[in-house]
Amino acid sequence: MEFRPTEHQHQRWNPLRGEWILVSPHRLQRPWSGAQEETALPVADPNNPLCPGVTRPNGIRTPDYESTYVFTNDFPALHPDAPEPPASKDPLFQMAPAKGTCRVICYSPRTDVTMGIMAVQDIVKIIEMWIQELLDLGKRFDWVQIFENRGEIMGCSNPHPHGQIWASSFIPNEPRIKDLKQREYFEEHKTPMLLDYVKKELEFKERVVLSNNEWVVVVPYWAAWPYETMVLPRTHIRRMSDMNHDQKVALAHILRQLLTKYDNLFKTIFPFSMGWHGAPTGSNLDKNVDHWVFHGLYYPPLLRSATVKKFMVGYEMLCQGQRDVTPETAASTLRNVSATDHYMFKD
Amino acid sequence: MEFRPTEHQHQRWNPLRGEWILVSPHRLQRPWSGAQEETALPVADPNNPLCPGVTRPNGIRTPDYESTYVFTNDFPALHPDAPEPPASKDPLFQMAPAKGTCRVICYSPRTDVTMGIMAVQDIVKIIEMWIQELLDLGKRFDWVQIFENRGEIMGCSNPHPHGQIWASSFIPNEPRIKDLKQREYFEEHKTPMLLDYVKKELEFKERVVLSNNEWVVVVPYWAAWPYETMVLPRTHIRRMSDMNHDQKVALAHILRQLLTKYDNLFKTIFPFSMGWHGAPTGSNLDKNVDHWVFHGLYYPPLLRSATVKKFMVGYEMLCQGQRDVTPETAASTLRNVSATDHYMFKD
Ligand SMILES: O=P(O)(O)O[C@H]1O[C@H](CO)[C@@H](O)[C@H](O)[C@H]1O
Ligand SMILES: O=P(O)(O)O[C@H]1O[C@H](CO)[C@@H](O)[C@H](O)[C@H]1O
Repeated sequence: MEFRPTEHQHQRWNPLRGEWILVSPHRLQRPWSGAQEETALPVADPNNPLCPGVTRPNGIRTPDYESTYVFTNDFPALHPDAPEPPASKDPLFQMAPAKGTCRVICYSPRTDVTMGIMAVQDIVKIIEMWIQELLDLGKRFDWVQIFENRGEIMGCSNPHPHGQIWASSFIPNEPRIKDLKQREYFEEHKTPMLLDYVKKELEFKERVVLSNNEWVVVVPYWAAWPYETMVLPRTHIRRMSDMNHDQKVALAHILRQLLTKYDNLFKTIFPFSMGWHGAPTGSNLDKNVDHWVFHGLYYPPLLRSATVKKFMVGYEMLCQGQRDVTPETAASTLRNVSATDHYMFKD
Repeated sequence: MEFRPTEHQHQRWNPLRGEWILVSPHRLQRPWSGAQEETALPVADPNNPLCPGVTRPNGIRTPDYESTYVFTNDFPALHPDAPEPPASKDPLFQMAPAKGTCRVICYSPRTDVTMGIMAVQDIVKIIEMWIQELLDLGKRFDWVQIFENRGEIMGCSNPHPHGQIWASSFIPNEPRIKDLKQREYFEEHKTPMLLDYVKKELEFKERVVLSNNEWVVVVPYWAAWPYETMVLPRTHIRRMSDMNHDQKVALAHILRQLLTKYDNLFKTIFPFSMGWHGAPTGSNLDKNVDHWVFHGLYYPPLLRSATVKKFMVGYEMLCQGQRDVTPETAASTLRNVSATDHYMFKD
């Protein structure tokens, strides 16, 4: 029998992580009688504590902002100063210091909007605010993680459109491994891994979801989540703060298109966790980071409909990631939904 | 200020994975207005397809079994034979073969039981069946993953008490890294990492939840999930199939105690994913595996109550695991709930 990747089980290598993912395309046929998720639409709510003029649970009043608003998280996982743990001698009981700060970024004064229906110039404002925060926090911290958990099923506890920043004195596991893998590739091939990658994806076409003059959105060859995507630049951008004006506007355009596609896929405000990875900051600002290519990551949990998600549980936790739909099929499905007519405004 | 691990943020090293976990004990105070989970109790249902004599959706009748029953999954992620992908030359587009088999293990003919209320001799039967499957599948496959997803929130789609086995021609990521890390430790220290670890935990006591003559249950120093535990032997057991009779019975005892504690913690059938890791099988059966120590892993998602779970989302997916309650506090909480009086049978 001839091998067909859309039909036959196989593994794929994730070169950014140095690990495998199991692909079992035949498994999508299994019936589902497990948990049904609720994915609620955002409701206009001027009393949400993240809205302008509303007092938050800790007594602080959110100011009358008109586009975006950033503040320090009232319950941060990282404080800028904390006593440091003592040096540990035992290799099995090692502690290390952790310092940092956590911020909340409101995307809009309104609760009932979402990036897929926002005006492009408003998305540009969010991008500019991300860059401002990266520049500011990046002076002091080695890693600035800009991210968003969208939807209750992704642990988001407030429906107001907002993202987060956790900046830390240390480079966390994921970017640390990415740094290493990109460096190894660069040393061997003399070109940045992700620029080579995006060039090849543009030739293959089958995993490309969207592209414009500056950016390409693909379902990565090694994607773990069913509709996972990666936002990649066509040119060598190392950090978000390297973008020129055209690149910012083009990024706003492609994000709006991607988020419209996502929402249209299952006719719901598509839940996900997303975030940006670029060259590390702080003590790394003066170092050579030519191996790094700035990119965005979307990890959406839904598998078959607005209510059925992919569970990354037993086998995935104990062994390795496993997916049913192939990245090529997912990309083709995403290509076939509209990037412009948001389902909430149709008819 | 003096550093106190139960109060001050820090990182901890996971020596089995070679990565860090962020601990933010102060964060448990934050209010929660996000998703509320449902954790339903199992209901007696003699028409469940996993019950004796009931016909499954694919038309096959589950036989009239009296204790445990194993069958090949009707929708397996891995088939024993499938065409192999061609060799890939590009380092960014690598595929590898994947062969295997998936089995379902019913723990009992009844749907309304769970390990915390089963008789110890019935748990011994489950352990014996796990060993039988490991011996059988281990002849042909390099890795035999025995695991269980319990509860809808862990993606379990059938409330009948059951576990799974996914056996594969390859050693998946997690055990591959564990193999490497345990090997490195053994080469340096000439003793197995996890035997050294369990000895030290028995001295420290603060992370020990349960122990008997053969087994110790700890909340690992590097635990990621709030009430994560690890089941470790006191002696050098390399694979589940190495256990003698006393060790099997003692394991059944400690599992029953652990599961009673888990259920009592939030007065719910505590959801989790769990599984066993031991030395690899198949082509590794003749190799020296002295660096391996067989152990069990429980990853329960609940954080504060039967309805509020820990979400491993944005920061955790993009950066690294983060926990609020410290492993020491979690262990002390688990020590303080009964290991014998199951809440379902009180009063
Ligand atoms: O095989 P099941 O129970 O139908 O499926 C469950 O466990 C599998 C193995 O961890 C996961 O891949 C699935 O996402 C989950 O729903
Ligand atoms: O900070 P939030 O939105 O309250 O919390 C959410 O995101 C965090 C960062 O990914 C996670 O640690 C939490 O488990 C999740 O509920």
